[in-house]
Amino acid sequence: MPAVTLDDVRDAATRLSGVAHHTPVLRSRTLDERVGAEVFLKCENLQRIGAFKFRGAYNAVSRLAPEQLNKGVVAYSSGNHAQAVALAAAELGSSAVVLMPEDTPQSKVDATAGYGAEIVTYDRYTGDRVALGAALAAERGLALIPPYEHPHVIAGQGTSALELLEEVGELDTLVVPVGGGGLIAGSGTAAKALRPGIRVVGVEPAAGDDTKRSLEAGERVKIDVPRTIADGQAAEIPGELTFSINRKVVDDVALVTDDEVREAMRFAFERLKIVLEPSGATGIAALLSGRVPAPGKAGVILSGGNVSPERFAELIARG
Amino acid sequence: MPAVTLDDVRDAATRLSGVAHHTPVLRSRTLDERVGAEVFLKCENLQRIGAFKFRGAYNAVSRLAPEQLNKGVVAYSSGNHAQAVALAAAELGSSAVVLMPEDTPQSKVDATAGYGAEIVTYDRYTGDRVALGAALAAERGLALIPPYEHPHVIAGQGTSALELLEEVGELDTLVVPVGGGGLIAGSGTAAKALRPGIRVVGVEPAAGDDTKRSLEAGERVKIDVPRTIADGQAAEIPGELTFSINRKVVDDVALVTDDEVREAMRFAFERLKIVLEPSGATGIAALLSGRVPAPGKAGVILSGGNVSPERFAELIARG
Repeated sequence: MPAVTLDDVRDAATRLSGVAHHTPVLRSRTLDERVGAEVFLKCENLQRIGAFKFRGAYNAVSRLAPEQLNKGVVAYSSGNHAQAVALAAAELGSSAVVLMPEDTPQSKVDATAGYGAEIVTYDRYTGDRVALGAALAAERGLALIPPYEHPHVIAGQGTSALELLEEVGELDTLVVPVGGGGLIAGSGTAAKALRPGIRVVGVEPAAGDDTKRSLEAGERVKIDVPRTIADGQAAEIPGELTFSINRKVVDDVALVTDDEVREAMRFAFERLKIVLEPSGATGIAALLSGRVPAPGKAGVILSGGNVSPERFAELIARG
Repeated sequence: MPAVTLDDVRDAATRLSGVAHHTPVLRSRTLDERVGAEVFLKCENLQRIGAFKFRGAYNAVSRLAPEQLNKGVVAYSSGNHAQAVALAAAELGSSAVVLMPEDTPQSKVDATAGYGAEIVTYDRYTGDRVALGAALAAERGLALIPPYEHPHVIAGQGTSALELLEEVGELDTLVVPVGGGGLIAGSGTAAKALRPGIRVVGVEPAAGDDTKRSLEAGERVKIDVPRTIADGQAAEIPGELTFSINRKVVDDVALVTDDEVREAMRFAFERLKIVLEPSGATGIAALLSGRVPAPGKAGVILSGGNVSPERFAELIARG
């Protein structure tokens, strides 16, 4: 019995109904012409907290027993998972402690605290966030909500692909960004169960190709800390659980350069009128660069849009 | 018999079906909390050519006789109407000539030419675009497609409000940007017919308050050329036709400052993850600034998103 099934994703969708946004699917004739395909863009940048992460976090927190919700949850993240857990806990009448590196941008600290979470900072060079998280969980009786290594998190992320497929019907290819592998594990599980013929293609930044290497090697491969603008995908090694799923549901992984990601972010702003953070734009980058051949109908999950206007301008500035 | 009726708007919607995007309606809990209302954002920035203008242009061009479509159409605009007419003509197998001032930004010239239109430039200080347009129309037998003074254009613009109301049901207030007055004339006509109790509120930039003054005076008032970042709303005087409709369907007009518009553009980027040009953000500016009290449920038409990333960064730069 697989760790996550289509039924788990469907159950997550029921829990998320009326809580998460049913995000829109955008089309662009310009994109279609440039790619030579019909492209369906699932806008998780328009999800609550600006990224798909809310789906998994909410599903996981919603499964906790009432007494655990009373005690609260803990997560470590400097990114979208922090806000996702904070908001999920608030929505479910629980409370969240979020461990963040001391040098996390103040805007992200504020956003997470704004959803009512308690922020605990640590030194990213000397501190061990896993140990700190475990200690906090033990001391205060908190439930740890991991960013991807959890069946309920993975099932929640899969609701994005489920919604996309229910809305557009048949797709030949599904293109999904890969960081720790939770989004594509859930999305691939749902997609392969609903449409066995679908091709599920992951996208990683070229510098952060741990999942691509791992799939090729048939085992989890650890790489050096990736240097890429796609900070949401800067994983060094796939998760154990996500890798065990992705071995079965992912057909291929394409790599994109940071410059291709910058061009995709600009394209999204200029032509689609939407804001994508670097990781959120890697799917479009893969299509525009031709690195994922996508004849017929292609769905792309745009994973998030959390980037400040100032950082955005810096990133897309032309030489 | 009014110049434009709900049936005209419904007929336009039928023509636009499958051609224009059925644009998404976004929600934001943050916005709701700040405004103290349930706010429904109709995203015409996500419409084809990046603005609502495609609706009216397509509806008007689609009504032309086949022999007129063979001869072609003409329009004058340096903004969204130019691209709208160019694309509408291309979609309907016709051809478009677009008159643009010589100093139109190259990106807008390119975008319009990219849809296959012939661009004719004129000197905005010495040339008379109305006379030039009439001369071209006479010489070549072209049909002039005006930006707002035309019942088919107005009916087309009204499909935006029609879609919004069909999707969200009852609304207490509908907030619509006002330039020449075509968008609010069509939207107000549809809204008042569908929901007689709805309050239709226009928004103008404070420097471009010609419609507000005209409604207060009971006749069309001409103002000095407005200096505002909301260039899509820099009208000096309401249209005759649009004013005759807006006297009946507009309950009030709110004014917003350029700084309020900048803040609304930033809010849209940071919190909604969408790109709005200044005119497209005036509705949100009116709500966030408290200039339009909107208890209950408020719909807001976000009219467009055509602004380059560079210009966007300049506009929202702080101090």
